[in-house]
Amino acid sequence: MAVYTDVSEPQLAEFIGAYDIGELLSYKGIAEGVENSNFLLRTTAGTYILTLYEKRVNRSDLPFFVGLMEHLAERGLSCPLPVHTRGGESLGELSGRPAAIFTFLEGMWTRRPAPQHCRAVGAALAGMHGKAADFPLHRRNGLAVADWRPLFESCGDRVDGIEAGLAAEIGAELDFVEANWPADLPKGVIHADLFPDNVFFLSGELSGLIDFYFACNDLLAYDLAIAVCAWCFEQDGSFNITKGRALIGGYASVRPLSAAELVALPVLCRGAALRFLLTRLYDWLTVPDDSFVTKKDPMEYLGKLRFHRSVKSVSDYGYDDERVTA
Amino acid sequence: MAVYTDVSEPQLAEFIGAYDIGELLSYKGIAEGVENSNFLLRTTAGTYILTLYEKRVNRSDLPFFVGLMEHLAERGLSCPLPVHTRGGESLGELSGRPAAIFTFLEGMWTRRPAPQHCRAVGAALAGMHGKAADFPLHRRNGLAVADWRPLFESCGDRVDGIEAGLAAEIGAELDFVEANWPADLPKGVIHADLFPDNVFFLSGELSGLIDFYFACNDLLAYDLAIAVCAWCFEQDGSFNITKGRALIGGYASVRPLSAAELVALPVLCRGAALRFLLTRLYDWLTVPDDSFVTKKDPMEYLGKLRFHRSVKSVSDYGYDDERVTA
Repeated sequence: MAVYTDVSEPQLAEFIGAYDIGELLSYKGIAEGVENSNFLLRTTAGTYILTLYEKRVNRSDLPFFVGLMEHLAERGLSCPLPVHTRGGESLGELSGRPAAIFTFLEGMWTRRPAPQHCRAVGAALAGMHGKAADFPLHRRNGLAVADWRPLFESCGDRVDGIEAGLAAEIGAELDFVEANWPADLPKGVIHADLFPDNVFFLSGELSGLIDFYFACNDLLAYDLAIAVCAWCFEQDGSFNITKGRALIGGYASVRPLSAAELVALPVLCRGAALRFLLTRLYDWLTVPDDSFVTKKDPMEYLGKLRFHRSVKSVSDYGYDDERVTA
Repeated sequence: MAVYTDVSEPQLAEFIGAYDIGELLSYKGIAEGVENSNFLLRTTAGTYILTLYEKRVNRSDLPFFVGLMEHLAERGLSCPLPVHTRGGESLGELSGRPAAIFTFLEGMWTRRPAPQHCRAVGAALAGMHGKAADFPLHRRNGLAVADWRPLFESCGDRVDGIEAGLAAEIGAELDFVEANWPADLPKGVIHADLFPDNVFFLSGELSGLIDFYFACNDLLAYDLAIAVCAWCFEQDGSFNITKGRALIGGYASVRPLSAAELVALPVLCRGAALRFLLTRLYDWLTVPDDSFVTKKDPMEYLGKLRFHRSVKSVSDYGYDDERVTA
């Protein structure tokens, strides 16, 4: 939950004055998003989300993020649409922070994803990849495969304090993933954080995607691997093969996967699990306990990593394709 | 900020099914209220607040709180109105917590109160006291003058670690306040927590009062003393006599204060400052740092207490009345 920066009513009223969105009626800090401060805004014209970008977000990345949402929304993807000022700006400044106003997206994220949710998420992710194909801006993935070893090294020597042998296990995994990472798969703009709390549903239908603040250019199938990690495991840590089949099948129904992508999926999933294991490990070991950041258990992703290491082919994810699982 | 208990969409949809408020469109945890979990709810019928009552709130007090809001709203006070289920209930259960739905109140709390805000708050507080006069339920003030010494004792022996001599100063203040506490002033239902974040304004006008979860039966003028502490000091700790005059004058314009109440106001203000000093001190010394509860600096209230100790009569608050300041 996150409201790091407060806003006073006169400041906000002045900020809103630059937009054609009516008069301010109320605003509430909302417990959504980890990186930024978000407010639900009500005006005489409707309901909006106000986002204040905090230090964790690089200012120079904002045109990419906001531009991408606008690009995707224009192409029919349901996501928050940046509202422009009368002067045509979609980024301003409020309380000393870069700030933007977005249309409000109805719908709710699902705390208990079922296979039909996974299928819809897979299809939406592939749809996003297609709609982003002609997005002109580029953003390097700051958490790409090459960044994981330095991130691991910055965790210091307390890793084995969490579990004996963990440092060696991660080191070996880094060796494997770096050596086997596919180089020539289709690339494009990926969401890179499509967890259940970033996907809204309404009456059982997917109503939109939010939180594009990790979006970047990388392998498209790696985005699918992140989603496999995020959607297809049960609370007890076991992999749900029905959900895997639904998610991958949903994706492939919109954007067919090449044989090379299917072959690479297990190593991409190992990479995805490692990426979240490492960022959680880093936060676990370095973020002070009294911080506003809610620390998530890194061990959840160690379990997922070990499962992916046991996978022989995509058929272990429930997805059968005669090209690779004949 | 506070969302202690999460709610899943199927649970919430089922809960809402008992009300005539349409179909669920979205809900967001909001950073409002310290004691409970609050969600902003949007349905096809409108916008509402959903409150889940956490452990800090005694279940047996809920009929008092919810009944009071209903009583006050029926008499024209602008405050959240509990919505009834089709069966006529205003309290239910959700995620293992007592829960209620309220109408949404437009408006914003003011981060920088000006004298005109103070005048409006005084008048609204007096209005609330009048409208609550025939409320039939009763709730003992759990933080009344008799409760302060046990609360102080439960802070243990680390008080002087915050400031040398603090324990002796508080002890002497308790002696004074207990010996001089007025017994025969008008009593009634008080808000007991009318801080700026519990009063909404819209276009400069007071649009409503919220958060009645400290409301109880006590001296009416003590509620005014709490508001003096909450509204009339500047960020640098100095008392703003113009705001004092506006707040007390606003109150007296709606409910005239007796001479005895005016004479007692300085000791009531000392008590109010002591009450918030002690609860903050207790939280400061006992609540773990990684708790969700945002700990507030107790020393702010020590400064206020010292100011009130220097006050000779209500004229030092900016309020002149020939009966007591001739």
